[in-house]
Amino acid sequence: MDNLIAKKMEEVTSFHVMALLNKAKQLEKQGRDIIHMEIGEPDFSTPEAVVKAAQNFLAKGDIKYTSAAGLPELRQHIADYYAKHYSVTVGVERIFITPGASGAILLAMAATMDHGDEILLTDPGYPCNANLAHLLNAKAIRIPVHDKESFHMTARLIEQYWGKRCKGVLIASPSNPTGTVIDSDILQEIIQVTHARKGVFFSDEIYHGLVYGDVAETALTYSDQVFVINSFSKYFGMTGWRVGWIIVPEGFIEVVEKLSQNIFIAASTLSQVAAVASFDENNLKQLEARKMELQERRNFLLAGLRELGFSIEVIPQGAFYIYAKCSMFTENSFQFALELLEQEGVAVTPGVDFGNNKEKNYIRFAYTAPIDRISEALSRIGRFTCR
Amino acid sequence: MDNLIAKKMEEVTSFHVMALLNKAKQLEKQGRDIIHMEIGEPDFSTPEAVVKAAQNFLAKGDIKYTSAAGLPELRQHIADYYAKHYSVTVGVERIFITPGASGAILLAMAATMDHGDEILLTDPGYPCNANLAHLLNAKAIRIPVHDKESFHMTARLIEQYWGKRCKGVLIASPSNPTGTVIDSDILQEIIQVTHARKGVFFSDEIYHGLVYGDVAETALTYSDQVFVINSFSKYFGMTGWRVGWIIVPEGFIEVVEKLSQNIFIAASTLSQVAAVASFDENNLKQLEARKMELQERRNFLLAGLRELGFSIEVIPQGAFYIYAKCSMFTENSFQFALELLEQEGVAVTPGVDFGNNKEKNYIRFAYTAPIDRISEALSRIGRFTCR
Repeated sequence: MDNLIAKKMEEVTSFHVMALLNKAKQLEKQGRDIIHMEIGEPDFSTPEAVVKAAQNFLAKGDIKYTSAAGLPELRQHIADYYAKHYSVTVGVERIFITPGASGAILLAMAATMDHGDEILLTDPGYPCNANLAHLLNAKAIRIPVHDKESFHMTARLIEQYWGKRCKGVLIASPSNPTGTVIDSDILQEIIQVTHARKGVFFSDEIYHGLVYGDVAETALTYSDQVFVINSFSKYFGMTGWRVGWIIVPEGFIEVVEKLSQNIFIAASTLSQVAAVASFDENNLKQLEARKMELQERRNFLLAGLRELGFSIEVIPQGAFYIYAKCSMFTENSFQFALELLEQEGVAVTPGVDFGNNKEKNYIRFAYTAPIDRISEALSRIGRFTCR
Repeated sequence: MDNLIAKKMEEVTSFHVMALLNKAKQLEKQGRDIIHMEIGEPDFSTPEAVVKAAQNFLAKGDIKYTSAAGLPELRQHIADYYAKHYSVTVGVERIFITPGASGAILLAMAATMDHGDEILLTDPGYPCNANLAHLLNAKAIRIPVHDKESFHMTARLIEQYWGKRCKGVLIASPSNPTGTVIDSDILQEIIQVTHARKGVFFSDEIYHGLVYGDVAETALTYSDQVFVINSFSKYFGMTGWRVGWIIVPEGFIEVVEKLSQNIFIAASTLSQVAAVASFDENNLKQLEARKMELQERRNFLLAGLRELGFSIEVIPQGAFYIYAKCSMFTENSFQFALELLEQEGVAVTPGVDFGNNKEKNYIRFAYTAPIDRISEALSRIGRFTCR
């Protein structure tokens, strides 16, 4: 049967960190204490307001499909959030609720990419974006980006890599794995360059909200003809609930509606109802407090890693990741991660999960554990690198 | 921007019933009483055991991602269910939890279909299956099937339509829209014929459990090299929860795991935890009682429609649909449905939503309303057709 697997699946990668995760589970079964810094999921519980909203709705016990575009009340809250938070006006009809940002990216690409079309992405970057393009028989062109551009796309790079079959550009800011935020001027410029080439611009904003310092600008500030992807998973602390959203240009409403019906029917109703409570004033205050906690962790981990000799070229201003250069310790960060796990019980993600741009020189640390655990992790890493 | 829509989207259809649904909502706003027989969703609430399980888990408040394959406990329960209910052995590692059956079908097709590959489907049939194939740049060949084959695929049809690029066959039994169940011998035969041609066999079993009379046989009875799609939405009464599953052949475990990670990350954790309670003995008893209620409705509606002069060629043995011939009343079932809604406030689904095989001669009635409402609907339909 193996020869019946679709050929395009060869281009779809799996997460290398899964091998590490399995190893970590094995070690934990043996009683070893593992510090998890490999997972893109904060350690915080679901916010109380969200749990409460779910409980209230469950008490009524009648959980039916919503329309494909999602719960009208939730869509309205999101529109209001853009007005208040970003000062941009988004018509409710342009907002679609999705099963997580994964669903949103699938919708965006499916609505725009034909067989053989190309999409420009950064390397390093979140691997699923390239994989979803391959799944749809489009081609992901992964452009190497470097510390001097804060690991972000530039107008020059788009011009350089734009080919005949190029259909669009996807950026993510704050970036996973680097945590860096794109400069507003550059964001505006790359949208212009993309639109000048009649391309589609996708802005993955799932780590918005988790920016330490300035607010990150949404791509919608510069154009209403972009696709914006966001999620309740990260800032809003609702990973396991699987609910995100996409904002589409006016001309795509009909086609995205059609796609949602066919691919999802709808996102989980209970998750949608619960997500409404995210916009509660007190909840937003609690989320800001969590952000402060993450900022403290970032500062602590950044200083600690630098002290140990890791090189972190650009201070990560957002998300909950530090992408650290480890070439002073190893020529192969995957091997480094494996040995660090086996010898010291610290789990991290090797660069290879984010592309092929000097990936063996980098490790991603997620600060999704409390400060005392990060402190313990730093001690262990220090012991490991001094061997 | 409209010219940036992917060309393949022209082949993806939307639900025509949506136009009717919008009309129904308008009329309801005006105070009209609408009887809904257009929706593929039973009127029953979520079973109490499921609600209770969700409430207990929510009380702990910690809702994180599960692994991409899903909650181990739920996968084990599904394996046990196949052993007990169908007497087939399914290794847990072959079971993947998905965001509804929609997600399961997407996984199955994505894992197997390359650009230009063909998949054979029945017409009439659930339109999303063909649309998901088109989305993946595969080609859905919709084979007209008729009352004399209970609206199901046959070995002869597969032989007749099998072409050079043909990669597989998908059947759904009980069928949506016809409610008919495929004969066990024919099921076995078409699996053999498909495998003899080195094709992939997909069995959509989401209406299993809702069969009045005999138990429907799973395709796994005849081969462990088939893909079986199922869901907690229909028999288990969990539509809005968006949780289903797929059973894959051994050789596809790795590739489906990879796809799940990329497309979904995971299904909703709370929905997965809640779904575990579906297998509670008392809950299964309640579901059987609901099935009896649906059977009574089917009998009542079937007799009523026949009395009014509709022709129902094959008694639907499962699901909650009757696919009735209405060519004695109209030459255009969409127009018929629209006028029935406007004049008498009964919403039904026109045949055009299920394909292009004499679609203007058929209407799908969903018996997802209580008997007294079905009775009222029959009176109204009688009044309408006598005009």
